[in-house]
Amino acid sequence: MLLKVYVDLRSQPCRALIIFLKNTKIPFEIETINLRTGDHKKPEFVKITPLCTLPAIQDGDFSLGETVAIIRYLATKYSDLVPDHWYPKDLKKRARVDEYMAFHHTGTRGGCCGIFISEVLIPLYSGGKQHASEERLKRDEENLTKQIDKLETAFLQDNDWLAGDDISVADVLAVSEIMENTVNGRDVAEGRPKLRAFIDRVKNRLNPVFDEVHEALYAFRDSYNK
Amino acid sequence: MLLKVYVDLRSQPCRALIIFLKNTKIPFEIETINLRTGDHKKPEFVKITPLCTLPAIQDGDFSLGETVAIIRYLATKYSDLVPDHWYPKDLKKRARVDEYMAFHHTGTRGGCCGIFISEVLIPLYSGGKQHASEERLKRDEENLTKQIDKLETAFLQDNDWLAGDDISVADVLAVSEIMENTVNGRDVAEGRPKLRAFIDRVKNRLNPVFDEVHEALYAFRDSYNK
Repeated sequence: MLLKVYVDLRSQPCRALIIFLKNTKIPFEIETINLRTGDHKKPEFVKITPLCTLPAIQDGDFSLGETVAIIRYLATKYSDLVPDHWYPKDLKKRARVDEYMAFHHTGTRGGCCGIFISEVLIPLYSGGKQHASEERLKRDEENLTKQIDKLETAFLQDNDWLAGDDISVADVLAVSEIMENTVNGRDVAEGRPKLRAFIDRVKNRLNPVFDEVHEALYAFRDSYNK
Repeated sequence: MLLKVYVDLRSQPCRALIIFLKNTKIPFEIETINLRTGDHKKPEFVKITPLCTLPAIQDGDFSLGETVAIIRYLATKYSDLVPDHWYPKDLKKRARVDEYMAFHHTGTRGGCCGIFISEVLIPLYSGGKQHASEERLKRDEENLTKQIDKLETAFLQDNDWLAGDDISVADVLAVSEIMENTVNGRDVAEGRPKLRAFIDRVKNRLNPVFDEVHEALYAFRDSYNK
């Protein structure tokens, strides 16, 4: 049975996982779970993962949630089909990618996602009836700055990539989050030339796959700004 | 050179890492970095980890931050000194622990830590001058409930342990976070008999090490409630 990957490409970690997979020779098929219509909470999906989050996978009789756990599982099981630089086997190199992937949850993702929920999702999901408070927006903005500062000082520094001397899943995860903020026109790289060059470097390295997988986001951005 | 582990035992992830290490045969020495006096931001510590967070390790010429990355690195490097159940080598069993460790950041830790910062740290660090707003406390409380619900439904379920048929680092990480809330007298397990039994099970399995490592927390709790 082919590896089944459950995603909604409007979600950042789903896009990151698909970009990773398309850069490997792991055979897989996509099954779309619509987050907006709540398909991730339906009984048949709860059987796949009681976390009710995307992405998730079904590999034979084994199902798993949580992006970084999925990446580790697949990179280990199908190690001969995954170019090493994506998730290096070398102990210290792998630890660097793991260090970023641990930071990522509350770091890059925490910063980018917080303000996105406040600025975009709260008004959108309430049909314009609800808006985040000034206090909340201020905290989200301060946190975004703090986390992106950390991304630059602790990981990017003067390097080309976040964790090592070649592109890895760390870079894909980070840029997939940063892209989300283009919907509300928030330029996370403003005043950060090294970060901007890094984002462009990742996009260029991953294209045409990067733009293909981001089509749903580009459409969302265009409709949001109409 | 002996593995050096930088911790402040007032921090939950530091306690979790030390409990894990004390249950292995990995030789290590502790160096205390005082978070309250800002030792984690001093230049000599920035050299260990530019993340400026605890715990961190120095293993020969290699230094690393982020608890779950440290656990993975040590469990792999010293695999013959770490009983397998803590971080199983079997692919699927390991993926279950990885899945929890990914959830942990914004899940158990996010829920427990959020309300702890609002209720305890904001007043404490401002000398009683600042207090979290009602709005913030309400959100923190709602998030705590949401994350603990998820901990129960997606991981604990009717099992003895969070990820597998024996204790693992997942259980140590989770209970170390939940313990923090005893300072402000918040009983995370209230109305949750399965969770309460689980917490007791983890403590009993880990004692006397659990109480030894939590001495700093017990002292904090006692002084806070005077």
